[in-house]
Amino acid sequence: MKWSKAFIPTVKEDPSDAEVVSHKLMVRAGLMRKLAAGAYSYLPLGYRTLRKIEQIIRREMEAVGALELHMPVIQPGELWERTGRLKAYGPVLMNFTDRHGRRVVLGPTHEEVITTLVADNISSYKQLPLNLYQIQTKFRDEYRPRFGVLRTREFLMKDAYSFHLTIEDLKVTYEKMYQAYCRIFDRCGLDYVIVEAESGPIGGESSHEFMVPTEAGEDTLVRCSCGYAANLERATAATPKTEPKESPKDLRQVHTPGATTIDELTKMLNTPAEQLIKTLVLVGDGKPLAALVRGDHELNEAKLAHAAGVSNVQMADAQTIEKLTGAAVGFAGPVGLSDLPIIADKAVQGMVNAATGANKTDYHLLGVNPGRDFTPSTVADIRLAAPGDRCAKCNGELKFSKGIEVGHVFQPGAKYSDALGAQVLNEKGKNQPVLMGTYGIGLNRIMAAAIETRADEQGIIWPMSIAPFQVILVQLGQSDQVLATAEKLYEDLTARGCEVLWDDRDARPGVKFNDADLIGIPLRITIGEKALAKGNVELKPRTEKQPQLLEPAAAVDTVMRLINS
Amino acid sequence: MKWSKAFIPTVKEDPSDAEVVSHKLMVRAGLMRKLAAGAYSYLPLGYRTLRKIEQIIRREMEAVGALELHMPVIQPGELWERTGRLKAYGPVLMNFTDRHGRRVVLGPTHEEVITTLVADNISSYKQLPLNLYQIQTKFRDEYRPRFGVLRTREFLMKDAYSFHLTIEDLKVTYEKMYQAYCRIFDRCGLDYVIVEAESGPIGGESSHEFMVPTEAGEDTLVRCSCGYAANLERATAATPKTEPKESPKDLRQVHTPGATTIDELTKMLNTPAEQLIKTLVLVGDGKPLAALVRGDHELNEAKLAHAAGVSNVQMADAQTIEKLTGAAVGFAGPVGLSDLPIIADKAVQGMVNAATGANKTDYHLLGVNPGRDFTPSTVADIRLAAPGDRCAKCNGELKFSKGIEVGHVFQPGAKYSDALGAQVLNEKGKNQPVLMGTYGIGLNRIMAAAIETRADEQGIIWPMSIAPFQVILVQLGQSDQVLATAEKLYEDLTARGCEVLWDDRDARPGVKFNDADLIGIPLRITIGEKALAKGNVELKPRTEKQPQLLEPAAAVDTVMRLINS
Repeated sequence: MKWSKAFIPTVKEDPSDAEVVSHKLMVRAGLMRKLAAGAYSYLPLGYRTLRKIEQIIRREMEAVGALELHMPVIQPGELWERTGRLKAYGPVLMNFTDRHGRRVVLGPTHEEVITTLVADNISSYKQLPLNLYQIQTKFRDEYRPRFGVLRTREFLMKDAYSFHLTIEDLKVTYEKMYQAYCRIFDRCGLDYVIVEAESGPIGGESSHEFMVPTEAGEDTLVRCSCGYAANLERATAATPKTEPKESPKDLRQVHTPGATTIDELTKMLNTPAEQLIKTLVLVGDGKPLAALVRGDHELNEAKLAHAAGVSNVQMADAQTIEKLTGAAVGFAGPVGLSDLPIIADKAVQGMVNAATGANKTDYHLLGVNPGRDFTPSTVADIRLAAPGDRCAKCNGELKFSKGIEVGHVFQPGAKYSDALGAQVLNEKGKNQPVLMGTYGIGLNRIMAAAIETRADEQGIIWPMSIAPFQVILVQLGQSDQVLATAEKLYEDLTARGCEVLWDDRDARPGVKFNDADLIGIPLRITIGEKALAKGNVELKPRTEKQPQLLEPAAAVDTVMRLINS
Repeated sequence: MKWSKAFIPTVKEDPSDAEVVSHKLMVRAGLMRKLAAGAYSYLPLGYRTLRKIEQIIRREMEAVGALELHMPVIQPGELWERTGRLKAYGPVLMNFTDRHGRRVVLGPTHEEVITTLVADNISSYKQLPLNLYQIQTKFRDEYRPRFGVLRTREFLMKDAYSFHLTIEDLKVTYEKMYQAYCRIFDRCGLDYVIVEAESGPIGGESSHEFMVPTEAGEDTLVRCSCGYAANLERATAATPKTEPKESPKDLRQVHTPGATTIDELTKMLNTPAEQLIKTLVLVGDGKPLAALVRGDHELNEAKLAHAAGVSNVQMADAQTIEKLTGAAVGFAGPVGLSDLPIIADKAVQGMVNAATGANKTDYHLLGVNPGRDFTPSTVADIRLAAPGDRCAKCNGELKFSKGIEVGHVFQPGAKYSDALGAQVLNEKGKNQPVLMGTYGIGLNRIMAAAIETRADEQGIIWPMSIAPFQVILVQLGQSDQVLATAEKLYEDLTARGCEVLWDDRDARPGVKFNDADLIGIPLRITIGEKALAKGNVELKPRTEKQPQLLEPAAAVDTVMRLINS
């Protein structure tokens, strides 16, 4: 394709709202343009890469026997009510009322739809396993879309759903899909890590995320040299060993006027944060509960929900807190808080002479000793791991880094089948719920992650597999000889199946070289009069500084060798 | 692919809500399932055909130099306000308010978005022409979705937009796209006719529709043997010749209590409908106007809007009519109706001694003569052509038939550029609005139209080009010899690039043959013990009754010849 016909509007300036490299480069290289918050148009160059990612995914899905289908974007709200996800998703779920007054959900995923489809069309275990996928536009009404295509309101997703009679069979497909995902990300040129993850609103116990480590990522990875890896929501740290330095003291009330934060309290009491017990009042599935974590730790709501046996938790409002504790917000504590379940983090259990709220405005208690002064209903790991924590498996130091989630595999099992009545007859002729695995890949994020992790100062560096073109022909000047050589190279390469972008513009060499670097085509062939005088053209991979001088025919051979290597 | 792994849930019964053949067969053949009104899931077999249609379209778009991009589904409502289409589309436009209170439109087409995109990225005539397309899911909140995938709330569309400096250049691309559309529909195996069409809410003067004639269609085609062809909204008929049989009589008022319809009036006055003048009060761009058509004719609102020079018209409410005419609804007439513009159909002009409303409740006027008793502000063709009408070009008889609209090409010109400020510098360095062509194809409708026009009693008959598989191997029984032959055929055909569905099910021959006919695979190879005893298999095209006996190797050669013919 000739550049002059290709609609590649490169620009020199970074867009003013861009915070990360991929966002900047995707706009500057003419891959996309913003239409509205979290909604981007992919221009021809950008869309070529997206389509290549699609094709890689299709091939690997086919290879594991997954079948492609296509479900509607618009889904009946009623299905989402039945699985409880209308509530679980909350305002992030795009939904509205149609002209007949029916609730319509714009699918962020399709568990409800596919479970219903399978329930209606599969009746026997003999028709299982079944593995179905689609590549489709999905929607989320993000409160604050940002980071270019990393957090958007509309995005392209490959979502797959497998169905099984037994958990063993589910695990076989889960493993196949896990391996297929590895191949997909490998083929897309990504360096990724696989971490244990929270399943979130998809549901199910075990899940894994495929993460590309980069500062631009919004997710936090927690890793140990022993191989342990989890996302922050899931990560478990060793419970800090607390050697009691002193014997339990008597409980004592102190006046702490206005000290409602850990920070204020450590100053006022001259006590380190790890000697404080943070008491949080929350609502889980409509019922209040208290959660205790050490002052220097942060609550992990997903873990708390697990420990409390509820589907989700949220902070209680001030009115509820005041009613339950009898004190203003900031002075809650577990002592005497008998009306609601208390879930304590493991690290709280070993504390001696801690400080915590007195359930009395402007007062805290000192000398608080768990077990003596209060008894939690449950003790569990309910906190976020934090820098400085040790690995729960090997006691090594946990490392924290940022990453982009590009894929996620789940095992929701019978969650959706139970809610929607998806059953099959087993070998004994009895109905049993079908078990489900769910698998997702974010195509736009693969693109962004490849840019984030491979770009240099000059621009994008595409891996060959997903480059919009494999070769860029840079024609310098418009002399007959240059033109004829460019045309011959274009034809020879194209005839051999190579995808060539031919920069035929009447522009200065500097502009062309800068644009070639910016858009990141893996191989560049420069056709200029000087080299041509000796019968040569210049071949330069995007990753190298110096070009190689070659006769045109040799350049074609070398290009084809590099593409197929 | 083996049938046992392919998720093809064929069913014997027609779905209860299906009115047309394509709907029935698409469900029965396991191509799709309904999720909600106007929203269907494409199952793997159906999706294969959709993907083939996509590929044919992509190849033909590439061939005319169109570039593929991908714009968001969600569009800012503000853009639609600026072009007036928020109102013009009305309730059929799916739209809602997001969590930040912004109006979001789910795109039924993308003129606003692409015009903005081009305006922001193209500044000079040197960058034109530009032809951009996408294949994308579109949305319409149809009041009554029906006819399977022919009228749905969500559908797959190829929409293209071309941009030009001059109308001549626009016409060049329009012609190229028109020809590309012909090739696309040819390649998809459709018999189609091209008709002049109304542009509707897309706008612009000239447009053409690609129609597949079939009773299942919702559109009406009007054709003449001279080659004239238009859709009903656009069709022009010759003005009926009225030889005055009598001289003008005096105007006379008659009492017509309760006669508010043409039907009641013809009975009460004992006058044929063609002697009545129907007077309709409408509102065009907010202002009232009266439209006159002969009693046996129907108003064409699009033509009226053109003639009145307004963007759209709608019937006035009863209150407005009563206020303007001084009479109850049903008694309006042009005589003395001086406060509003009167637009008369051409056929009204020649009427002598007509009857019409007296602008007085329960009264009509007789002996009404246009020109003498009232003078229209405008005389124009504002009616729908009707059976019995003659061709305006050759006076031949117009033929009416039903059809499915599968494609539509438009020339909205500067409509969107003017509204959204899309300008480029021309050769003289002056800004001028960029001109636009718009082109659409309904992929799901191609699929349905191919089924409607080619099915027989037994089921679908796919053209080779868009068949989900090219060959079905029907294995009868499970003997070693049958299995080995089937496997060898499967491998040989697949190795030669043929797409094969292998019916490996343990089912009766009748079930397999019926299913093969139902899903309409073009070529069937049957492998049974009886023929195999003589070294043969049976090859039968879907369109033929009798199979041909061939040795397996010869069957492979014949299949490949038939596929490539």
